[in-house]
Amino acid sequence: MSKNSDLSRSLTRVLDVNDLGVVIRDTGLDSFVDQLIARLRDGFSSFNSDVVQSQIRSGFSYMNPGLGLVEWMPVHQVGDVVSVKTVGYHPDNPQDRNIPSVLATTALYDTTTGGLKAIVEATVLTALRTGSASAVVTDRTSPNRPITLGVVGSGAQAVTQIHAISRVRPIARLIATDSNPENTLSLAGRLPSGMAEVEAVTLSEFQELVSEMDVICTCTSVEPGDGPVIQLDDAKPTVHVNAVGSDFPGKTEMPLSFVTEAVVIPDLVEQCLIEGEAQRLAPDQLGPTMVEILSEPELHTDLVDTKTLFDSTGWSYEDLIVAELFAEHADRLGLGTMVELTAISSDPYDPLATLRLSDSSRAKQKAQ
Amino acid sequence: MSKNSDLSRSLTRVLDVNDLGVVIRDTGLDSFVDQLIARLRDGFSSFNSDVVQSQIRSGFSYMNPGLGLVEWMPVHQVGDVVSVKTVGYHPDNPQDRNIPSVLATTALYDTTTGGLKAIVEATVLTALRTGSASAVVTDRTSPNRPITLGVVGSGAQAVTQIHAISRVRPIARLIATDSNPENTLSLAGRLPSGMAEVEAVTLSEFQELVSEMDVICTCTSVEPGDGPVIQLDDAKPTVHVNAVGSDFPGKTEMPLSFVTEAVVIPDLVEQCLIEGEAQRLAPDQLGPTMVEILSEPELHTDLVDTKTLFDSTGWSYEDLIVAELFAEHADRLGLGTMVELTAISSDPYDPLATLRLSDSSRAKQKAQ
Repeated sequence: MSKNSDLSRSLTRVLDVNDLGVVIRDTGLDSFVDQLIARLRDGFSSFNSDVVQSQIRSGFSYMNPGLGLVEWMPVHQVGDVVSVKTVGYHPDNPQDRNIPSVLATTALYDTTTGGLKAIVEATVLTALRTGSASAVVTDRTSPNRPITLGVVGSGAQAVTQIHAISRVRPIARLIATDSNPENTLSLAGRLPSGMAEVEAVTLSEFQELVSEMDVICTCTSVEPGDGPVIQLDDAKPTVHVNAVGSDFPGKTEMPLSFVTEAVVIPDLVEQCLIEGEAQRLAPDQLGPTMVEILSEPELHTDLVDTKTLFDSTGWSYEDLIVAELFAEHADRLGLGTMVELTAISSDPYDPLATLRLSDSSRAKQKAQ
Repeated sequence: MSKNSDLSRSLTRVLDVNDLGVVIRDTGLDSFVDQLIARLRDGFSSFNSDVVQSQIRSGFSYMNPGLGLVEWMPVHQVGDVVSVKTVGYHPDNPQDRNIPSVLATTALYDTTTGGLKAIVEATVLTALRTGSASAVVTDRTSPNRPITLGVVGSGAQAVTQIHAISRVRPIARLIATDSNPENTLSLAGRLPSGMAEVEAVTLSEFQELVSEMDVICTCTSVEPGDGPVIQLDDAKPTVHVNAVGSDFPGKTEMPLSFVTEAVVIPDLVEQCLIEGEAQRLAPDQLGPTMVEILSEPELHTDLVDTKTLFDSTGWSYEDLIVAELFAEHADRLGLGTMVELTAISSDPYDPLATLRLSDSSRAKQKAQ
């Protein structure tokens, strides 16, 4: 029995995109995102940095020939798990290779043994958790009535921003633009059914309509140095903006005037100061953090009545929460493929034992 | 065709410990390690930091209830691949759980797309590359004749240290010790066949024999602060030490007198100063690096005639080299399991497409 449990500890569960499809079709997208929003809200409200230790992401960026980067986002839930999401961001992927610009996987390590417990699809999960984080913040910063939502950038992230926000606020009117008009026109067909009709407009038309918007999401692949993607001088005095695209030094989507005027709500302060909209601010110019507005709501009651900016660079803790939600549903449905990635043997001091064994003697050892 | 190649780019090859067993049994352990030693030697000799960019490892360490850590070791081969080895070190694993203290996997990311190309067993590969790196350095620092080899710490790493060194120097005499006598006694049975007979001795007997040793490997799980594991006052004036165990702040195996007296050869300067034997030295007390003694041998001709210390903390570039050697053999033998970890769809802007498709429509899409 102890031998068996030792063996099972060394197995890694692979949860791939097909497994995720089964989970989402079983649970329903609306219900899965509702659960995710609730988990994120709980996680932020009760956040304790002694229990959840996150590091800002680090990685390699390069021109090869276009901009590319591979980076890792680690978080440690003390006494339980270390989660490391690895993300590739290659903005030429859609046009040149017909694959998403963001590709990601999350690895979950057992902190008792150090073993790799699971490796999980995270490309779709990243889009889902980014949308859901915007929904959690929008729920605290926008009027509690049907809203007019504007979206700048109509690619993959727009889909999950719109859908997740629709779970916390009825969307009365939905206005979208993109530097590529084809993306704006195709957006409606990529949204889950039941969303508001998409008003697909040019950027200048969008600009004319800014004064009517309650909430704006920016989720573009603007090149570093080429922002802002929109002017916000005419925005409502109560507008809330979810700035999702800024995730690289020099890459910002907001006009500086709006960043200095609005209450800036960072998801992860140190990371926002390096690569978020906040990279142009001093630390004392930041507003309360995402964790603070959720854990201390009584201290931040005025957010609905003022201009607010959610500086969403993406937090490794969000990746852990969504990976665990996926893994729980996968467990319930009996999904996943087990692989024997790491070496085990009857003798932990004998690194070559596993290699020496023939397949038949391995089978015998396992059966013991 | 282009659709097919897009699809294949999103698949991840899993190379597990069973695949590694097939490769080693096909190639032969001696031959595999000879190839690895040659690859490491070539990699170090021709090393160019514009082409191979490595970062020092980072991670989370904790007491849970004993010492544990999970850390990642990244390296970027420009224009080709980012490799991230994730390592767990849990020194209580062997005694408490009958599994190795070091558990590791290496993930290889394509820098064109950011996709996860492969995930590879790295527990055994780590032991093999650590032994082979010691062999590469020992070959430059020890007399070119049969040697007397002493080993402090007779666990998993001892096996691969002894075997790899035997590929560059005949081992005339092999003396081993361990804080646990059982490990010393069982070492002979864990070595590949054809090694010298093991003289299994107590630490005090080992200490008496130090003056006869040409090369010493220390590969212990000494607790931080509990070193040194051996005294070297009586060592030969030409002794070479491979210090393998020091890989954590406070964890050192060498007496300070030896570290200050010997030529200290770091594998990765910044990392050695944090967690290697060099953590007790100032940067200007270090000798030439492993790369320097191999890329500029004409500048370092006296290493055989003096006391030398290889400060082996483990370098992510070594992990990339051994993973690629394994992957090449696996390719040749047609090994590995393909998994569809990351999401693909006919539309890179549609993150939900993959989730909406039924299994049969997926199959149709793939067959197009």
